[in-house]
Amino acid sequence: MRVFRIRAPRAEDPGIGTRFDKPVDRLVGADGRFLVERAGARSGLSGAFIRLVTMPAWGFLLTLVIGYVLINLLFACLYQLVGVEGIGNASLTSGVERWLSALEMSVQTITTIGFGYLYPKSHAVWAVAAVEGMLGILSFSLTAAVLYARFAKPKADLAWSPEAIIAPFRDGWSLQLRVANRRSTLLMEVEARLLLVMADVDEQGERLNYYNLPLQLDRVNFLPLSWTIVHPIGPESALAGLSLQDLTERRAELILILKGIDEGYMGQVFTRHSYRYDEITWGARFARAFSSRGGRLRLDLQKLGETSPVEAPSNLPG
Amino acid sequence: MRVFRIRAPRAEDPGIGTRFDKPVDRLVGADGRFLVERAGARSGLSGAFIRLVTMPAWGFLLTLVIGYVLINLLFACLYQLVGVEGIGNASLTSGVERWLSALEMSVQTITTIGFGYLYPKSHAVWAVAAVEGMLGILSFSLTAAVLYARFAKPKADLAWSPEAIIAPFRDGWSLQLRVANRRSTLLMEVEARLLLVMADVDEQGERLNYYNLPLQLDRVNFLPLSWTIVHPIGPESALAGLSLQDLTERRAELILILKGIDEGYMGQVFTRHSYRYDEITWGARFARAFSSRGGRLRLDLQKLGETSPVEAPSNLPG
Amino acid sequence: MRVFRIRAPRAEDPGIGTRFDKPVDRLVGADGRFLVERAGARSGLSGAFIRLVTMPAWGFLLTLVIGYVLINLLFACLYQLVGVEGIGNASLTSGVERWLSALEMSVQTITTIGFGYLYPKSHAVWAVAAVEGMLGILSFSLTAAVLYARFAKPKADLAWSPEAIIAPFRDGWSLQLRVANRRSTLLMEVEARLLLVMADVDEQGERLNYYNLPLQLDRVNFLPLSWTIVHPIGPESALAGLSLQDLTERRAELILILKGIDEGYMGQVFTRHSYRYDEITWGARFARAFSSRGGRLRLDLQKLGETSPVEAPSNLPG
Amino acid sequence: MRVFRIRAPRAEDPGIGTRFDKPVDRLVGADGRFLVERAGARSGLSGAFIRLVTMPAWGFLLTLVIGYVLINLLFACLYQLVGVEGIGNASLTSGVERWLSALEMSVQTITTIGFGYLYPKSHAVWAVAAVEGMLGILSFSLTAAVLYARFAKPKADLAWSPEAIIAPFRDGWSLQLRVANRRSTLLMEVEARLLLVMADVDEQGERLNYYNLPLQLDRVNFLPLSWTIVHPIGPESALAGLSLQDLTERRAELILILKGIDEGYMGQVFTRHSYRYDEITWGARFARAFSSRGGRLRLDLQKLGETSPVEAPSNLPG
Repeated sequence: MRVFRIRAPRAEDPGIGTRFDKPVDRLVGADGRFLVERAGARSGLSGAFIRLVTMPAWGFLLTLVIGYVLINLLFACLYQLVGVEGIGNASLTSGVERWLSALEMSVQTITTIGFGYLYPKSHAVWAVAAVEGMLGILSFSLTAAVLYARFAKPKADLAWSPEAIIAPFRDGWSLQLRVANRRSTLLMEVEARLLLVMADVDEQGERLNYYNLPLQLDRVNFLPLSWTIVHPIGPESALAGLSLQDLTERRAELILILKGIDEGYMGQVFTRHSYRYDEITWGARFARAFSSRGGRLRLDLQKLGETSPVEAPSNLPG
Repeated sequence: MRVFRIRAPRAEDPGIGTRFDKPVDRLVGADGRFLVERAGARSGLSGAFIRLVTMPAWGFLLTLVIGYVLINLLFACLYQLVGVEGIGNASLTSGVERWLSALEMSVQTITTIGFGYLYPKSHAVWAVAAVEGMLGILSFSLTAAVLYARFAKPKADLAWSPEAIIAPFRDGWSLQLRVANRRSTLLMEVEARLLLVMADVDEQGERLNYYNLPLQLDRVNFLPLSWTIVHPIGPESALAGLSLQDLTERRAELILILKGIDEGYMGQVFTRHSYRYDEITWGARFARAFSSRGGRLRLDLQKLGETSPVEAPSNLPG
Repeated sequence: MRVFRIRAPRAEDPGIGTRFDKPVDRLVGADGRFLVERAGARSGLSGAFIRLVTMPAWGFLLTLVIGYVLINLLFACLYQLVGVEGIGNASLTSGVERWLSALEMSVQTITTIGFGYLYPKSHAVWAVAAVEGMLGILSFSLTAAVLYARFAKPKADLAWSPEAIIAPFRDGWSLQLRVANRRSTLLMEVEARLLLVMADVDEQGERLNYYNLPLQLDRVNFLPLSWTIVHPIGPESALAGLSLQDLTERRAELILILKGIDEGYMGQVFTRHSYRYDEITWGARFARAFSSRGGRLRLDLQKLGETSPVEAPSNLPG
Repeated sequence: MRVFRIRAPRAEDPGIGTRFDKPVDRLVGADGRFLVERAGARSGLSGAFIRLVTMPAWGFLLTLVIGYVLINLLFACLYQLVGVEGIGNASLTSGVERWLSALEMSVQTITTIGFGYLYPKSHAVWAVAAVEGMLGILSFSLTAAVLYARFAKPKADLAWSPEAIIAPFRDGWSLQLRVANRRSTLLMEVEARLLLVMADVDEQGERLNYYNLPLQLDRVNFLPLSWTIVHPIGPESALAGLSLQDLTERRAELILILKGIDEGYMGQVFTRHSYRYDEITWGARFARAFSSRGGRLRLDLQKLGETSPVEAPSNLPG
């Protein structure tokens, strides 16, 4: 690998760390998630809550179902322990029947439905039911808390152009990408920051370097349509003088950090997106994604990545 | 249309986009809502939650009622499937009666009331009831979450003067509008920003331009009374030299962006308001909306738009 | 009233408004609440929610009780309408008994307890119970939402020195007041701002003027003990050259605005406090309110206002 | 104790207070909690809520259980008062049985289970049950609110190097410590501030002084791995010229304040950590805690404190 003269001032390590013994494929997945394993992480109650809040929806539902089943099995055992005869109208004909009666008693107690055909007769069963009633209320309060936390957490839902492009800009060239809000709620006070990560070889071996790519506009008041994020490639840009082959050799990765206030939540959202060197189109221009129809603006999200090809020099000017 | 010399430095595109093929009537409705259609928007769970939170109250209530009815119909079918005879004390006299018994069993289960006259007799019915009980708890947790999100989301409730006015200010003229808080809770750290959108004709056709109108005061610590927002029209103002006819021809639109912290929520609120060229009074002065009575301040919200006419030049000085 | 030469640059109107026809006694109560009446305020759903959240605790409890009673009376009437005979085991012996049965049916339904001795027999009663069950769930979800909003809203609980004092400071004099956190949770990133409001007479009559009083320190990282807020009275201060009699004549009022992040809520709190001219001690020094005991710091909140008298000039230097 | 020449500009009192009559052992515990006793603190409703939210988990559970038991005992007494005969199917055989029936009636009412074998027969019991039903709903709403507040409050879960180290940095020396996020959710916009607290003797006796230690980097965009916080010790540093013995004599304490936005909560978290003079390793270098394995980054939290010894001068250059 050639040694590159680094012209752009290197951005301070954004917290990712710089020197590794073996090359890293990709730092940030396309969806913005950091690809980091963790060893020795400890769990705590708040850690468990956070996991419940952040796990995928299907996993969360499965956890709920499993928890529901387990807690009923547990209390069914407790009712057996204190004697299923203590449950009024319990079916005592066989072991299976006794066990099912205990289970059914548990279900109607923990959900607080309390049908009543089966009812606590002995004081021991009453005691277990009293505990189970309170536990039921607590479990469902906690479920409601997790449900609310899952939904009410501000989450951006943005559409990105599938590729970043090297496009003409004013008298020169630029790196451009496009973003739009999938939702109909408004994103306000949107700020963006674009980082370039490239592997460089110096005297000590390979290291990842981070460069800030200044944007033509890093803040918009609101984002009802699409926003074309533009980094003009001037002589000071970290991309100056590079070609697509250079970016590929150096395993370049663009990380875009975006934050804004979503009107639906009235809270701040953060999101990240990543374009790898093989997700950059060398020489294109974005087609217009919005139009006006019948006096109203219309934004077509499918057209976000639509470009028309443009002849670009193999090496960016520098 | 005459070509206008643009003196004021053009504000950066606030995210709205500038060039359209057909003229746009109005960008922002009077209530601040952006008039944008969206094609290709995708839906997701969080999108559904957001829609539930932002839809109008009557639509939300209707959704709740329909959901409640549907889920009961579904479980009534399930009880029929496993056999209504499995429901203790169910009325089995006719098809309609059987079906109503299934429906009533469902209602008392999903609301967790569990009266008990009808009760799960067979194990199959118990199983369905166990599932329905949990679903009931979840549905109501979710409803509570949406209800809370709907109400607890900081929402400003401001009263605006019906028109913006061209009013005398110190030695010259200004654009003024007035805002007050309808609520009795205090708005704090209130910041305002005023944008002017006008269509201009240049070599490439028509384009919308955005101008920032600097305010005499863009921030007040608190807003217990009314706030008269004032843009002094100096030589650098985008309004310099224009007449009402110019504004009409150029389909001028004033967009006011306001944010503050509402003491009732202790959270940040954002709001927007729009005045179109036909909602500007050329030459007026705001009458006082507050007075002191018995040692106390008194704010009359009806008087917010009250003005007294003033002779103004047809063209603003520039 | 003498005409005062206003030396300090007048602070921009903090949003309170300046000219009144009759004098205003007090702008801000000692507890920081603005004393403003509002005419023409409109109510909405969110306004109602906010009122439920901000009303005093006893008023809120009363509202809950009244609401509970009313909704049960309403549904008791509905059960009467569709026929109390439709309620299984209802007591039909007299009008009062019938009515009480209807009421009791309502209570067990809306609370979702559903004892079951009284139960829906006719389909009409089932229908009413189905509606009441859903309404009960919704009402209680809403109550939970309001309860949470009431408690979870970040609220500061600060102790203030009962009086502000004119105290010696370095080579000159200063206005000082003291604040401490009553709670054991920490206040972080605390910022303060001190305003002076005085009535002045000018050519047009009386007007209220606002002056910012710059503080020696306007920000502390955390507030585990007490914070003595100090405004050094230099030549530029609005208090320069004034005496207590001047402040009384001009009905001076000190408004302190404080904001910080309360660790218990992990959210931002705002609070205001007001000292009127008759709550200023002319010539004193704060006694120390904290000490160290057994290697630990100890803060005595009762001593917050403790001062020792100091000889002060009747007119502040200027 | 020698008198020290204080070279570094003293940081403004961060709110802790400076002069004490007896020496203070430690200001901030290792876990960041301020060691302050409070006398005269007053309690209020919101204070009670905050205490429920901040108390340790086991204490909270105990409070819940005790509250549950007490409220049932209270209502059992009320049922006794109005007459246990008013409870249908109550066991009236002995005083104990009567009392247990009252207790069981209370349990099934306050949990809203309402089995139904025991049911309100007399109107008096119905009245008590009506009150208890509402109280049950309110108590559980409040419990849900506290549960949610406990869990949803943004809480950082960071791992710290057990010791701070004096390490080589570029051409000189530095004070370093390391922090990593235990959770798998991302910390964003992380800001750090490092304070040094030392006791100094001046003319008036002993006083605690606070020094800000400027960091090489005080802000990272995100923290997916570890962050080595570095204070380069130059001539202006408060540590310049000091030795470990100096720090011990002066009971030096390092307080690190960190804040960031946790992606799991999408809210701001604050945390503090403290290193006392006996938790500083004089002369070491941090070993690398992350590696790359199979193209992915791997962070080992156990290795956070791993250092290799380095020969350091007994007095830091200054």
